[in-house]
Amino acid sequence: MHADLPHVVIVGAGFGGLRAARALRRAPVRVTIVDRHNYHLFQPLLYQVATAGLSPEDIAHPVRAILRRQRNAGFRLAEVEAVDFEAKRLETTTGPVPYDFLVLAVGGATNFFGLRSLEASALPLKDVEDAVAIRNHVLRMFELGVQEPDPDRRRAMLTIVVVGGGPTGVEAAGALSELVRLVLTKDFPTLDVKDVRVVLLEATDRLLADLPERLREYTGETLWRKHVEVRFGARVVGFDGARVALQGGEVIPARTLLWAAGVRAAALADRVRSRQGPLGRLVVRPTLQLAERDEVFAIGDAAFVEASGAALPMMAPVAMQQGELAARNVVHLARGEPLETFRYRDPGSLATIGRTAAVARLGHFHFTGFVAWLLWLIVHIVQLIGFRNRLLVLVNWAWDYFLYDRAVRLITRPEHADPAARDAAAPAPLERSA
Amino acid sequence: MHADLPHVVIVGAGFGGLRAARALRRAPVRVTIVDRHNYHLFQPLLYQVATAGLSPEDIAHPVRAILRRQRNAGFRLAEVEAVDFEAKRLETTTGPVPYDFLVLAVGGATNFFGLRSLEASALPLKDVEDAVAIRNHVLRMFELGVQEPDPDRRRAMLTIVVVGGGPTGVEAAGALSELVRLVLTKDFPTLDVKDVRVVLLEATDRLLADLPERLREYTGETLWRKHVEVRFGARVVGFDGARVALQGGEVIPARTLLWAAGVRAAALADRVRSRQGPLGRLVVRPTLQLAERDEVFAIGDAAFVEASGAALPMMAPVAMQQGELAARNVVHLARGEPLETFRYRDPGSLATIGRTAAVARLGHFHFTGFVAWLLWLIVHIVQLIGFRNRLLVLVNWAWDYFLYDRAVRLITRPEHADPAARDAAAPAPLERSA
Repeated sequence: MHADLPHVVIVGAGFGGLRAARALRRAPVRVTIVDRHNYHLFQPLLYQVATAGLSPEDIAHPVRAILRRQRNAGFRLAEVEAVDFEAKRLETTTGPVPYDFLVLAVGGATNFFGLRSLEASALPLKDVEDAVAIRNHVLRMFELGVQEPDPDRRRAMLTIVVVGGGPTGVEAAGALSELVRLVLTKDFPTLDVKDVRVVLLEATDRLLADLPERLREYTGETLWRKHVEVRFGARVVGFDGARVALQGGEVIPARTLLWAAGVRAAALADRVRSRQGPLGRLVVRPTLQLAERDEVFAIGDAAFVEASGAALPMMAPVAMQQGELAARNVVHLARGEPLETFRYRDPGSLATIGRTAAVARLGHFHFTGFVAWLLWLIVHIVQLIGFRNRLLVLVNWAWDYFLYDRAVRLITRPEHADPAARDAAAPAPLERSA
Repeated sequence: MHADLPHVVIVGAGFGGLRAARALRRAPVRVTIVDRHNYHLFQPLLYQVATAGLSPEDIAHPVRAILRRQRNAGFRLAEVEAVDFEAKRLETTTGPVPYDFLVLAVGGATNFFGLRSLEASALPLKDVEDAVAIRNHVLRMFELGVQEPDPDRRRAMLTIVVVGGGPTGVEAAGALSELVRLVLTKDFPTLDVKDVRVVLLEATDRLLADLPERLREYTGETLWRKHVEVRFGARVVGFDGARVALQGGEVIPARTLLWAAGVRAAALADRVRSRQGPLGRLVVRPTLQLAERDEVFAIGDAAFVEASGAALPMMAPVAMQQGELAARNVVHLARGEPLETFRYRDPGSLATIGRTAAVARLGHFHFTGFVAWLLWLIVHIVQLIGFRNRLLVLVNWAWDYFLYDRAVRLITRPEHADPAARDAAAPAPLERSA
C-alpha cells in the first residue's frame, strides 16, 4: 500500500461496505473499513440465533479474516462520532481518520416509532446481542413458567408476541413455534402445550407485503398450521413487560414481545449533518453521492435515493448493488470520468416459515413449500461468508432437520442482564392489580 | 415419577452433580437438579473459548437435553440462597424446594486470595462469561494496539500476563501464544510481533506441580519454544489494569492479566452454614455426608474429605467419582444399609500446551508431544457430552489444525462492558505519571 494513493474510508462492515471494499481490490486506492464491531454479521440468519438454531459464531465472521487476501484494504475497530466534511476527516473513539473518499454504509437500526414503553421492554432483533437476549429470555420464561403455580401468570410467561409481518417477523414467529412444538415440549415434560401461544401481530391486512397474493396466502396458512396465531389490523401501542396493549383497548398478557415492526437508518446517519429522507436515511443523488459532497457516498439501509421515488427496501441486495456502484463511482471520480447512476435490479425475495416451508419469488417464478425452502437453504448457505461457517451452519441445520432438535438452547447471560426476567420472578404489580 | 418416592435434590449441574443424577437413574427416587444455569459446562475446554478456538455453544449443553432420557430426573433453574437443614428445604430465587436427600455439588470459584486490585481488574477463567470476556478483551487490545502510536502504551496493550502454572495457566498461555503467532500475525499485517509478549508467572519453582519431573521439564521447554516467557518465583501482589506488580517491586506493563492462580469452593458453600475446611470447602465424612447431617452430601470442588488428610484436587475425576458414591450412599441410606467410604482412584492427568504438544500421565506411563496430544484430544472428545458438540468441536479443531487458524475471533460484547478496554482507549493515568 502506498501512502500517496487516495484513501477510501468505508464506514460499516455490513453487506454494502464489504461489497464496496471488495470492488475496490484492484483500484489504485487504499481502503480502510471502520466498524465498531470486528465482525461482519450475516443478518438474514439472525432470527436463527434468537430461536436457538445457530450460535452467534456461526453467522459472524471477523472482518480481518475477510480482508486477509485483499492487499489494499485494512480494518480499524472504532466507533464514528462525527464526520468533518470540511477537513475530510472522521472523528472516532480512537482518534481522527482522514479520507479522500468516504462511503457511508452504516446500516439500519430498530425503529420503535417513539413508543417509549416498547423501547424499554420489547426485544428488538437487529444485532448479535439482541438475538442472544431473545434466546435467553424465551428460554428463561419457559424455565420460570413450568415452575409457576398461578395459571394466568404461567400463560403470560409462555406467550410470545411477535410484532411485524415482514420477513423477520414471519421467520421468527415460525421458528419460535417450531422451537416450542418440536423441542421445548420434549425438554419440559411437565409443560402443557395448551398454555403456550405464539402470536404474530400485523398492523395492515397482509404478511410479506411485497410478495404476490398466492405466496402471501400460503404464508398465512402455513403459519396457522404451525400454531402461530396471526392477527391482522393489530396495532401495538404499549408494552409494560407483562401486557401488550393494542389500539382499540385490547390487552394480551405476555412476558415476551419481539419487535420486528420497524427499521430506520442507524443513529450515525443523524450525526452526519446531511439532509435526511424518510426513516432518517441520508438523501443521495442517483450517483449515490450526498447532495453537497462529491466525495462522500451513502449506500444501503442508511441511504435514500430521492430520484427513484419510492424508497428502496432495507435489504442486503440493495446494499450490495449500491456498494458495487459506489466503488465504481469512486474510481470514476478519481479519474475525472463521468459517474454512473444507480438502478436496482430486483433479484426476487425469499422467506422461510419453518421446516420445509418457505416462499420464493425469483423474477416471474414463484415457489412455495419444500422447493422454496431448498432454494432458501442454498442461497443462504452460498452467501454465508467463510467456508467454515457454511460447514458448521450446515451441520447445525442437518442436526435440527433430522432430529427435530435445536442445538443452542443455552441461557448464557446472568439474570440481572434481563430486566424482563427479573420482573417475572417477582410478582408483577400490573398483573396483580388487574 | 411417583410423588411419594424420596426426593433427591442435587445442587449443581457440573461433572459431580450430573454423574450423581445419572447414577440414580434406576433407583426408586425422584431426582431434581437445581442450577442457576440451564447448561452443563465442559470446563476443561473453557480456555479454548477464551482463546478463540471454540464457541461457548461447543462446550455447553442444556441440562434438560442431558436428562431427557432419564425418566426420574427433572431440572429446576434457580439460584440457591440458603439451605434450611431443619425443614429439609432449599430457599431459592424461585421459591422453596423440599428434599429428602441433598447432594451439594456446587463446584468451585476463582480465588483472588483477598487481593482487591486483582478482583477489580484481572480476568478470571471459571465460566462462559469469563471466557468470552477474555476473548473479547485480548482481541480488542490487539485492535487498539495496532492503532496506538506510543510504543510503551502499545507494548502494554500487546502484553498478556497469565498468572498460575497449573493446567489452566499452562494451557491458556500456550493457546494464547499460538493465537498470536499463528493467527493474529496474519489478521494484523501491520503488527510487529516483537511488540507482543505472553508471560506466564508462577509463584513456586514448578509448572504442573503434580506431574513427574520429566513432564514438567518438557512443559517448560515447550512453552519457551512457543515464545511464552515463563517466570518462576514470581508472586503477583497487584494489578491496576495497566501494570502488574510483583513481590519485590518489579512491575510488568500489561493491559491483560489472566488469573489462573487460585480456586476455592463456590460462594454457596459459605451460605450452607456447615463447617468449612481449606479453601472454603465443606467438611465431609469419608461417606461424603456432612458432619452433622446424615441426609446431606457434599462432593467435588466444594467438598473436603477430612479423613483423607491432604485435600483432593479440584478436578472433574474427583467430582465424578464422588458423585457416583454419593448416589450409591443415598440409596444405601434409604434402604437402611451401611454406607460406603470414598477412595479416590487417580486416573492420571493430561495437559495440552498447544498444537501437537501435550503431557500425559496415565498410571505409571508418561507421554509427551504428539502422542500425548492425541491422547488428550481423544479423551476430551469422548468426554464431551452430546454427539453434536463432539462433531462441532472436531470440525473446529480440524479447521484450526490444518489451516493454522482460529475460528471464533469475534469481539461480541460492547466496549462499555469491558472496563479494561475503556481505560485503554483513554490515556491511563498510572502510565503517564510513571
